[in-house]
Amino acid sequence: MSFFPEVPARIPFEPGSRNPLVFKHYDADFEVEGRSMKDWLRFSVCYWHTFRGTGSDPFGAATMVRPWEDGTDSLDNAKHRVDVAFEFITKLGCPFYCFHDRDVAPEGSTLAESNRNLDVIVEKLKEKQEVTGVQLLWGTANLFSHPRYMHGAATSPNADVFAYAAAQVKKAMEATHELGGANYVLWGGREGYFTLFNTNMKRELDHLAQFMRMVADYAKSIGFSGQLLIEPKPMEPLKHQYDYDVAGCLHFLRSYGLQDDFKLNIENNHAALSGHTIMHELTVAAANGALGSIDLNKSDLHHGWDTDKFSFDDRIATLMLLVIMDQGGLAPGGTNWDAKVRRESFEPIDLFYAHIGSMDTFAHGLKIAAAIRKDGLLSDFVKNRYSSYDDGIGKNIEAGTTSFAELESYMLEKGNPDANASGRQEMLENLINAYL
Amino acid sequence: MSFFPEVPARIPFEPGSRNPLVFKHYDADFEVEGRSMKDWLRFSVCYWHTFRGTGSDPFGAATMVRPWEDGTDSLDNAKHRVDVAFEFITKLGCPFYCFHDRDVAPEGSTLAESNRNLDVIVEKLKEKQEVTGVQLLWGTANLFSHPRYMHGAATSPNADVFAYAAAQVKKAMEATHELGGANYVLWGGREGYFTLFNTNMKRELDHLAQFMRMVADYAKSIGFSGQLLIEPKPMEPLKHQYDYDVAGCLHFLRSYGLQDDFKLNIENNHAALSGHTIMHELTVAAANGALGSIDLNKSDLHHGWDTDKFSFDDRIATLMLLVIMDQGGLAPGGTNWDAKVRRESFEPIDLFYAHIGSMDTFAHGLKIAAAIRKDGLLSDFVKNRYSSYDDGIGKNIEAGTTSFAELESYMLEKGNPDANASGRQEMLENLINAYL
Amino acid sequence: MSFFPEVPARIPFEPGSRNPLVFKHYDADFEVEGRSMKDWLRFSVCYWHTFRGTGSDPFGAATMVRPWEDGTDSLDNAKHRVDVAFEFITKLGCPFYCFHDRDVAPEGSTLAESNRNLDVIVEKLKEKQEVTGVQLLWGTANLFSHPRYMHGAATSPNADVFAYAAAQVKKAMEATHELGGANYVLWGGREGYFTLFNTNMKRELDHLAQFMRMVADYAKSIGFSGQLLIEPKPMEPLKHQYDYDVAGCLHFLRSYGLQDDFKLNIENNHAALSGHTIMHELTVAAANGALGSIDLNKSDLHHGWDTDKFSFDDRIATLMLLVIMDQGGLAPGGTNWDAKVRRESFEPIDLFYAHIGSMDTFAHGLKIAAAIRKDGLLSDFVKNRYSSYDDGIGKNIEAGTTSFAELESYMLEKGNPDANASGRQEMLENLINAYL
Amino acid sequence: MSFFPEVPARIPFEPGSRNPLVFKHYDADFEVEGRSMKDWLRFSVCYWHTFRGTGSDPFGAATMVRPWEDGTDSLDNAKHRVDVAFEFITKLGCPFYCFHDRDVAPEGSTLAESNRNLDVIVEKLKEKQEVTGVQLLWGTANLFSHPRYMHGAATSPNADVFAYAAAQVKKAMEATHELGGANYVLWGGREGYFTLFNTNMKRELDHLAQFMRMVADYAKSIGFSGQLLIEPKPMEPLKHQYDYDVAGCLHFLRSYGLQDDFKLNIENNHAALSGHTIMHELTVAAANGALGSIDLNKSDLHHGWDTDKFSFDDRIATLMLLVIMDQGGLAPGGTNWDAKVRRESFEPIDLFYAHIGSMDTFAHGLKIAAAIRKDGLLSDFVKNRYSSYDDGIGKNIEAGTTSFAELESYMLEKGNPDANASGRQEMLENLINAYL
Repeated sequence: MSFFPEVPARIPFEPGSRNPLVFKHYDADFEVEGRSMKDWLRFSVCYWHTFRGTGSDPFGAATMVRPWEDGTDSLDNAKHRVDVAFEFITKLGCPFYCFHDRDVAPEGSTLAESNRNLDVIVEKLKEKQEVTGVQLLWGTANLFSHPRYMHGAATSPNADVFAYAAAQVKKAMEATHELGGANYVLWGGREGYFTLFNTNMKRELDHLAQFMRMVADYAKSIGFSGQLLIEPKPMEPLKHQYDYDVAGCLHFLRSYGLQDDFKLNIENNHAALSGHTIMHELTVAAANGALGSIDLNKSDLHHGWDTDKFSFDDRIATLMLLVIMDQGGLAPGGTNWDAKVRRESFEPIDLFYAHIGSMDTFAHGLKIAAAIRKDGLLSDFVKNRYSSYDDGIGKNIEAGTTSFAELESYMLEKGNPDANASGRQEMLENLINAYL
Repeated sequence: MSFFPEVPARIPFEPGSRNPLVFKHYDADFEVEGRSMKDWLRFSVCYWHTFRGTGSDPFGAATMVRPWEDGTDSLDNAKHRVDVAFEFITKLGCPFYCFHDRDVAPEGSTLAESNRNLDVIVEKLKEKQEVTGVQLLWGTANLFSHPRYMHGAATSPNADVFAYAAAQVKKAMEATHELGGANYVLWGGREGYFTLFNTNMKRELDHLAQFMRMVADYAKSIGFSGQLLIEPKPMEPLKHQYDYDVAGCLHFLRSYGLQDDFKLNIENNHAALSGHTIMHELTVAAANGALGSIDLNKSDLHHGWDTDKFSFDDRIATLMLLVIMDQGGLAPGGTNWDAKVRRESFEPIDLFYAHIGSMDTFAHGLKIAAAIRKDGLLSDFVKNRYSSYDDGIGKNIEAGTTSFAELESYMLEKGNPDANASGRQEMLENLINAYL
Repeated sequence: MSFFPEVPARIPFEPGSRNPLVFKHYDADFEVEGRSMKDWLRFSVCYWHTFRGTGSDPFGAATMVRPWEDGTDSLDNAKHRVDVAFEFITKLGCPFYCFHDRDVAPEGSTLAESNRNLDVIVEKLKEKQEVTGVQLLWGTANLFSHPRYMHGAATSPNADVFAYAAAQVKKAMEATHELGGANYVLWGGREGYFTLFNTNMKRELDHLAQFMRMVADYAKSIGFSGQLLIEPKPMEPLKHQYDYDVAGCLHFLRSYGLQDDFKLNIENNHAALSGHTIMHELTVAAANGALGSIDLNKSDLHHGWDTDKFSFDDRIATLMLLVIMDQGGLAPGGTNWDAKVRRESFEPIDLFYAHIGSMDTFAHGLKIAAAIRKDGLLSDFVKNRYSSYDDGIGKNIEAGTTSFAELESYMLEKGNPDANASGRQEMLENLINAYL
Repeated sequence: MSFFPEVPARIPFEPGSRNPLVFKHYDADFEVEGRSMKDWLRFSVCYWHTFRGTGSDPFGAATMVRPWEDGTDSLDNAKHRVDVAFEFITKLGCPFYCFHDRDVAPEGSTLAESNRNLDVIVEKLKEKQEVTGVQLLWGTANLFSHPRYMHGAATSPNADVFAYAAAQVKKAMEATHELGGANYVLWGGREGYFTLFNTNMKRELDHLAQFMRMVADYAKSIGFSGQLLIEPKPMEPLKHQYDYDVAGCLHFLRSYGLQDDFKLNIENNHAALSGHTIMHELTVAAANGALGSIDLNKSDLHHGWDTDKFSFDDRIATLMLLVIMDQGGLAPGGTNWDAKVRRESFEPIDLFYAHIGSMDTFAHGLKIAAAIRKDGLLSDFVKNRYSSYDDGIGKNIEAGTTSFAELESYMLEKGNPDANASGRQEMLENLINAYL
């Protein structure tokens, strides 16, 4: 039985076509710098938006009544949904998926029941992975939807809630490990505050660090060798969230000695909410050896909330891939969409249009980025720009072998610095354009 | 000779008056929690805006033609200006001032000449300090106005510019030391980028760290015991500045091992540009032992640039003082306005209206904050909210003596967490209102 | 039977108290400029947030499980809820309420059934109004929650949806009329677009105008003499909404000749989303004779979505009341909160804390605004500032009796304009502070 | 004598080249839909940024010391600068330029002297226009830089300043007419307020309307048949400017009966500051028959001030051209850059890189937009989406021949509306991508 009968068994690659159900750029096995597109991009379908999204928003009810849903949150429905998901992922030709514990299996009336539900689904997911070859990019636990987490999970003023969250993450890590997940992600959606009037920030951060320490310890104890990731987001649902942006996350990790255990899962939309370009956030993370994985939806700076739109911008894709390629790729991380079709695109076929379009966009960006790298004009410009630090006084500065006194003598003697060179921003922007 | 003949020798304290040239709240020696208003607030007039501001903006020419200026950038004019400044500060009854090197003394045609100019003025400033009792809160060097700094100072791709900046800061630190400055500040106005296309971020940050290391070393070498401060600002003039916000600055310091040498000088307007409330920024800094000093202008979230308006908001002043009082004050730091009268308020008397109004605002806030602290209703609420961490499983969590496995057992046995309590945000907001 | 047993029959006025269940400023019959506080402020409880709010947000489920709810959307539950609402409003001592059709009565499976449901509830509301003296400030129809409105109501590309919306508004207007509503409001939450790629803006605006013309016609036909109001909001749920801000709404009305039939219902939070201060929006509306009513929640400029927080800021309240008093009040409009307790304030008593606090805030603002008006210093300053237009060339300019040629001759002869006066912004800001 | 000796007499068209001093897309006479690129795009160099820009910003001094400047504001230097300008424009192959009165000629000590200075330069400009064939797209008067305009020009509380502005605009209109300018522009940079505390908004708007009425009258009186334009900008230098956005400007024009005399000059950067996409602003203007001309710099939503960057984004260019082509072009308007090279791009050659790159970007966008229009897939989708209004109940709605009562009967009988169709946003976004 097929849930997407109008879609062929595998979306084909047909450059130049106008058919919206084919790829024009994404050719999974095509090699770029000796690596396949599939391996560079490591696309991952997200279970929550693609298979659990309903189109509800703060002002309106669900618009997407999926034909395969029976309207319940039963375990049977959950099992049925796994079949739908793997048909979709397989037809799309996508190598990975990712999920929250509560996306795939229903919450029970007790923790024990929830755990049993998850076990049932994990077994089915594992079977489907084996049959289809689809792999798990990462798992995570939903620590924000249930009312118990209203004041946070690891930062809740209620110690029992911390304990509950610990138990839930433990189980989700086990599920991820069982499914061969390449990473495990933590998003601290309610770790933060709505008002400082009722908040002891220092104590909450101490608790959060204890939690993360236990995550790292538990991963080791069960032999999970995937990458641990935390995810920056500055606000929404809360006024302020502790994992604000890349620098904020890195500061948290470093101040508690956790920097060797966690990398970052960076999202475009979250970068925008924190006032940064995605290229900035990726560059900061990469410069700190912490760029782990990406949620590659779109930054809409006209909106101050998390729209989780699919991204169709070749230019942004190209800039992102320049950073990714510069660090040699994302593996074991990858690219999760964390994107949802608009509420008004309520038909199942819209899910295909969205994923195909976004895969093409990043495949296009990959080819463009490779062309820019091959020419080397951009990287040569940057390298040359700092050449005054390659010897002389500059070299001493970098080596830390000079001092204010020596630099003052040098400059008093010289009188004035050597002339500056033009930054050539316009020429460089136009250079990039030549590849697009 | 007087430059402000319509202003009495000292602005008096006259509560209830409608005269705009008197204080209604600021009573310098009035004690709050056993410390004088003067010592809590440590107000500091900034030399650049108050004595060098002209009212020019990106779309218009200077409107403030001060009667004491002769229209030149001569050393004589600079000396004359010192007299004006100290008359103003003295009449205002303000205990401190602060300056950039190039505010007080003209830039010469060579570094040597600039240094000599500064020496002349420092001598005069020192005399004036002794006569009036006014003290120096902090000094700094202007590393952003001269074209040589177009690509940054410590992060310039031109190593000579790094050297020049080093020489200039060395001299400014010596001047600050000579004048008994309580702090030394560095604002990295052009340390950042306009486009990542021509930027090697990692190399620039390494250079910046080398610079800061030399600052700390030089301070020790000359026996300067004041506090070293860096100042967060996210953007403007650049697209991105490395000292983005408090967390970003702390990350920079920590990642280069500089966290024990520097604290932060935090500005309201900069907090707003980085998307934070000032109360947030102060709280983060205080929680990290890094709240050094404050630039207390106004955050106008409708404007995306640095308006440097004087602040007249009692509520914000109160919230700021709650954080400041909680850490026992700011000394050796203090409060610099970094605020300018509007371009349309072009008369000298407007300078008095602005400073008096802002001093009253923060004096009022101080009294309100003290009342809130005395009652203790707010702090008791917060303390009680986290009581589940004072014993039992919560205490173990804080002590780091538990694990995911133990917490899971605890919760599987208990079934569900103890119920959450209401966050009571509205009650607390209204409670604060009762004091305003 | 009481649903709020811990709350007395009427919240008392007890200035100076620390009891959070009393008013410290709001004294309903206290007269300000010869009019009672009650009549100036015309507070109105909103049915949707206060009685239908659940605390769900885009990332989490309902936290507010009200003891009086039976968990169904039945007509019986709806009738029961009317009892709760009127107990709350009566105890609060609030003179008005307002509602959407679907807040008070459940949607049926057909339009006819929905209409019958509404009839039942309207009858009960009418009885309750008569018993308690509480009045209806305004009614409205919910044209955004049901999936049929996914593409808009009056601007839907589906003409049937336009027709359905017309039928729904017709019925809601009848209900409002039956209940003696003082106004009828239209919020165009899905009148706009998510992408221009699928949108014919001109055709949609033409449809919207046809709809509004029918609203005005129908009001006349049934003898409804209340004020018709539209409500500016720039975005959310959509990317762009046609009723963007006050000027945008006025432009729409004027360009279709509707300006005499509609005034505006202006919300603080919406003003912030559109980049304006609330004082600006009120001033523009008042200058155009279009300030009809207010939704007085809080503008949080750190958040880019509609937080609908209760407002507790005396300063903002004062500034708003200066505009309101200047036009002689809001009647027949009033002030609806359109505010909800935070998700974490999940107990029924939090509803009282929130409403009491906000009523006190605006009552305080009313007293302060009256004091500012009584002194007249502010209004005199403004009046005097434009005195050059009271005679001479200025008078001719205002009268439209001069020309470019005449003005050029005047200025060529005069050489330079008379000197400008200082704008005195800082003095005026401090003047306002003296009243706070 | 040449000021740009390294640049050939005319920038050539060489598709595929890597030489930054050639066009890869802009081929002036290439026809698109039967009209040359030159005539579609009507590019115009702006005199102020390109020939008067110095690279100063609020935090730093001029970086661009042009070799042709003698450092004075003399009339001789101004005449000399005209030669430079026309060499640049001619080499670029740009058909138009535009200017403010004070860009081209120095302000004198009296109005009469300023007028004489302008006369001298206009004579020279006219000669150069005749020799080169370069034409004037529009002229304007600078009513914001001089201190006399600190409180506004037409909205100044000083009636003499209104008169001075009138005289200045009169002269600038005469100059524009003399030079055959195709349009005359007014930007109200200081028409607005910094604080409402000292502002009578209604009276100021009345004055502004009187001014605009005199502009329209004077144009008629001298036989100027070019288009009059006003320019939306929401803020900066002021907190709020009256010409806030397209809808705000149209509301102003309509409320004073000026809508037939003025169209709009719309700028990307200003659109961004007002919270809109440029495509939105252009669409609103076009729908109201008011899209006159464009300032085509870049919207940088990360910056809250007017960066006036050159735009190099093909996607934005394409979207803009879809609107422009849909209304049949911009003539007599055109596209002025109002963009400046970055402060760090301080060499004259950077001016060429910037202009060439931007011309190529919009030429590319023109070709892409034409391809989209030729296929018709996008426009067909939109047309078809509203087909329910082409007959039946929809047609009656558009014709205004139905009523709420009739629509209610229709819907009560029908029960439920016909089903909605998917909005297909993702498919359409991807469709656009296929052309890029």
